Amino acid sequence: NLPFVLIAGPCQLESLDHARMMATGIAEACAASGIQWVFKASYDKANRSSLSGERGLGMEKGLEVLNTISEEFGVPTITDVHEPWHCAKAAEVCDILQIPAFLCRQTDLLLAAGETGKALNVKKGQFLAPWDMGNAVKKIESTGNENIMLCERGTTFGYGQLVSDMRALPIMAETGYPTVFDATHSVQMPGSKGTSTGGQREFVEPLARAALAVGTAAVFIETHQDPDNAPSDGPNMVPLAEMTALLKRLKAYDDLTKG
Amino acid sequence: NLPFVLIAGPCQLESLDHARMMATGIAEACAASGIQWVFKASYDKANRSSLSGERGLGMEKGLEVLNTISEEFGVPTITDVHEPWHCAKAAEVCDILQIPAFLCRQTDLLLAAGETGKALNVKKGQFLAPWDMGNAVKKIESTGNENIMLCERGTTFGYGQLVSDMRALPIMAETGYPTVFDATHSVQMPGSKGTSTGGQREFVEPLARAALAVGTAAVFIETHQDPDNAPSDGPNMVPLAEMTALLKRLKAYDDLTKG
Amino acid sequence: NLPFVLIAGPCQLESLDHARMMATGIAEACAASGIQWVFKASYDKANRSSLSGERGLGMEKGLEVLNTISEEFGVPTITDVHEPWHCAKAAEVCDILQIPAFLCRQTDLLLAAGETGKALNVKKGQFLAPWDMGNAVKKIESTGNENIMLCERGTTFGYGQLVSDMRALPIMAETGYPTVFDATHSVQMPGSKGTSTGGQREFVEPLARAALAVGTAAVFIETHQDPDNAPSDGPNMVPLAEMTALLKRLKAYDDLTKG
Amino acid sequence: NLPFVLIAGPCQLESLDHARMMATGIAEACAASGIQWVFKASYDKANRSSLSGERGLGMEKGLEVLNTISEEFGVPTITDVHEPWHCAKAAEVCDILQIPAFLCRQTDLLLAAGETGKALNVKKGQFLAPWDMGNAVKKIESTGNENIMLCERGTTFGYGQLVSDMRALPIMAETGYPTVFDATHSVQMPGSKGTSTGGQREFVEPLARAALAVGTAAVFIETHQDPDNAPSDGPNMVPLAEMTALLKRLKAYDDLTKG
Repeated sequence: NLPFVLIAGPCQLESLDHARMMATGIAEACAASGIQWVFKASYDKANRSSLSGERGLGMEKGLEVLNTISEEFGVPTITDVHEPWHCAKAAEVCDILQIPAFLCRQTDLLLAAGETGKALNVKKGQFLAPWDMGNAVKKIESTGNENIMLCERGTTFGYGQLVSDMRALPIMAETGYPTVFDATHSVQMPGSKGTSTGGQREFVEPLARAALAVGTAAVFIETHQDPDNAPSDGPNMVPLAEMTALLKRLKAYDDLTKG
Repeated sequence: NLPFVLIAGPCQLESLDHARMMATGIAEACAASGIQWVFKASYDKANRSSLSGERGLGMEKGLEVLNTISEEFGVPTITDVHEPWHCAKAAEVCDILQIPAFLCRQTDLLLAAGETGKALNVKKGQFLAPWDMGNAVKKIESTGNENIMLCERGTTFGYGQLVSDMRALPIMAETGYPTVFDATHSVQMPGSKGTSTGGQREFVEPLARAALAVGTAAVFIETHQDPDNAPSDGPNMVPLAEMTALLKRLKAYDDLTKG
Repeated sequence: NLPFVLIAGPCQLESLDHARMMATGIAEACAASGIQWVFKASYDKANRSSLSGERGLGMEKGLEVLNTISEEFGVPTITDVHEPWHCAKAAEVCDILQIPAFLCRQTDLLLAAGETGKALNVKKGQFLAPWDMGNAVKKIESTGNENIMLCERGTTFGYGQLVSDMRALPIMAETGYPTVFDATHSVQMPGSKGTSTGGQREFVEPLARAALAVGTAAVFIETHQDPDNAPSDGPNMVPLAEMTALLKRLKAYDDLTKG
Repeated sequence: NLPFVLIAGPCQLESLDHARMMATGIAEACAASGIQWVFKASYDKANRSSLSGERGLGMEKGLEVLNTISEEFGVPTITDVHEPWHCAKAAEVCDILQIPAFLCRQTDLLLAAGETGKALNVKKGQFLAPWDMGNAVKKIESTGNENIMLCERGTTFGYGQLVSDMRALPIMAETGYPTVFDATHSVQMPGSKGTSTGGQREFVEPLARAALAVGTAAVFIETHQDPDNAPSDGPNMVPLAEMTALLKRLKAYDDLTKG
């Protein structure tokens, strides 16, 4: 029943300076409410809707930036891995490896990630029921790694739509592992903009509040100083300037649930 | 930003004595948290899954019971109407008429209900998007009645499944009318028991908490002293003995959101 | 294993002259392929998306028109009923009564329709699984009426979307009753035009072909001489001028399946 | 408007002898109806529901078997690739590379597959709309490879359920590329057996007939001499002994559509 942890950052790494600016802002927002946090950013957006979507700094340069942020800010970092060989490399730098939702059934990726011994955040595939995640858990446990988080990020609901089923949090928690609610990707509208994914930023807060009222160990929120010009997930990122007030409101729900 | 109102009662009227017992229990549970409430019960279950499902006391006897409860407990009452001619009759007794979800597009029913001048609680059809409810609103407003509530009770999600989309509450609130979250029918599993509808009582509280964290004017919870032997909706009704504690917890979320 | 029957007509009755014109055209199209048909039209559109949608001729005048068409063309007629008291009236004129999808769980409507002794076409609710229709069947059978057809017309698939599950036809046929595939309403896009329902006319033929390849006793297709100016269901009605060729193609699939 | 091609084989490679037996049976079944076919089998089941699911022969041994089958039977082969580095290896042996549904947005996999110059069969993700596949096409076309097939294999429809939307075939065909209907995986019931995926073999034929009536360039059917004891996808594979009769019936629908 620990207070919720925030996983936050820009969707993708843009530069060291940008990462520093984002980390500074998030650190301040979290400090204002006494929230522990983890810096999240992707070194590679490996599954963009279309080829024209920017992919980021790449693994080598990206991990370097994450390492610098970790050292300079004394904050744990999380990044997503896309192929088994990524895992050991990312694990040299990051405290948590994230399994993307599309890849949550790729056995080799889960095993390679598990074998790093690092904490893992496994996103529930948009095509899975919450109770199916027990199988992902068992794949990882087979490596001896029991440092697992299970993350809700929306389920396919007709074409171009996701729905957030709040029952998923207590159902996934029955595994005994902590849950994460990804309030950013849950409000995506897949493919709705033709060659990119739309989103509904206005629902990040209501869904995050709902998740904290239901009870969750962590909340995942991507943020950017200028979301409408961000290279990815702009429509569903929260402006950095709004994070302090948002986190304060969210903290109150978590305190009520956990208190 | 008024405190949430509770709409509560047994799913169907069983007898005057039973209604009295239920009203006594609910009144006590609400008094313990200072919650305003409305007594809900159906005089006729007009859309049971199968013919073998009990339908209740019937309109005449049912409305008599509702009238007695209203007088003895000084509590407003709500009941659901199924055909246009029901509306005027039910309006003689009840303070609020409820439009069942399956019937929320039946123009004549909406107009007849609207013409009573009573408050209306319109349940969103399981087959509709929250923004579609604006059309139901306009049908009712055409009668001059602007005393409308819009109720989320789950959306069709594959066969035999419903999902509660918490975004529906703020979207329906854009009409300017108060919203209701029906935590009882949202956890139904339609047809899952062959000739009756199953349910997941354990999710009533998490979903109600989520709805109050998002923000809603009212919560609808059916309750029974012995749900497992109730004539309808047993699998998703909350035991009466648990209501006091449940309401106390729910009130805290509402206070946080509204305060 | 009889050849498929076509249920066809304009969505709503507009006038006797219009009904005559439509019946003439459909009769010709059917004669060209030797297809038995039933004239379908609604006297009242009781569940339009919005109040501004036209509702039709009304019951009295509408049934008169259906009676005239039946006599002049020697064709059976079908119309949809919306309240229990409609059934006996409509049964004086029509050979088949149709239960609208939204109303397929309204016990009193099913019983009243069953008691007329007429054939019934029960549309599967957009919110039901095909196996749930067994309960509707049992309600009707309780009246001694075993002249039942079960109709697939699409299932809710996210907001504003329907999907046609071809498995529904053989599943509903397990009841022992003939099935109907409604190729017109299956391509609706509910609420997609704000105050009216959109549609995808271009998929009427592919879905009807699919249904006949799977196997169905009847196909339901609404048609109009000028769909884009029809008072309802315009976006998903087939132009009358295209019916002869369409039916010829559909007949070939039915022959293959049944032959 | 060429006759449909059959993609068939056991779900996973079990041994060279087994592959020979299967290929012999499929070749005979196809010859009886004059159907061109492609031998499909997986060297690795990389995304089994659970760790206890068998994964197959592995890449090296698996590709050897595929090579032998190709040479001995003079039949093209197709296999699925799971990581970018698989593509060049698999392309040394196989005529067609298949992109698994879960991986259809993994840009690097699509690019590596495209760069082999081989034909590609891209399965539509269960989480995508058919029109989203245009983005996968463009990723592949960027490599200069225009030898693309797009495959429908069911879309997420609530938890543990898939639905086959027959509209997906003409919609994906608008890209100008041929479509495949995967009648085997479309009848999966994901996760329905706890640690493995269930299936509904009885719907393989109806859905394949529907797809051929709508129009498709290829049909994908997995088969096994003893599906109930097969190491994967047993519940939805067709017994080998039934293939001859099944293909004869399917051919008739294709002839009608294409003729």
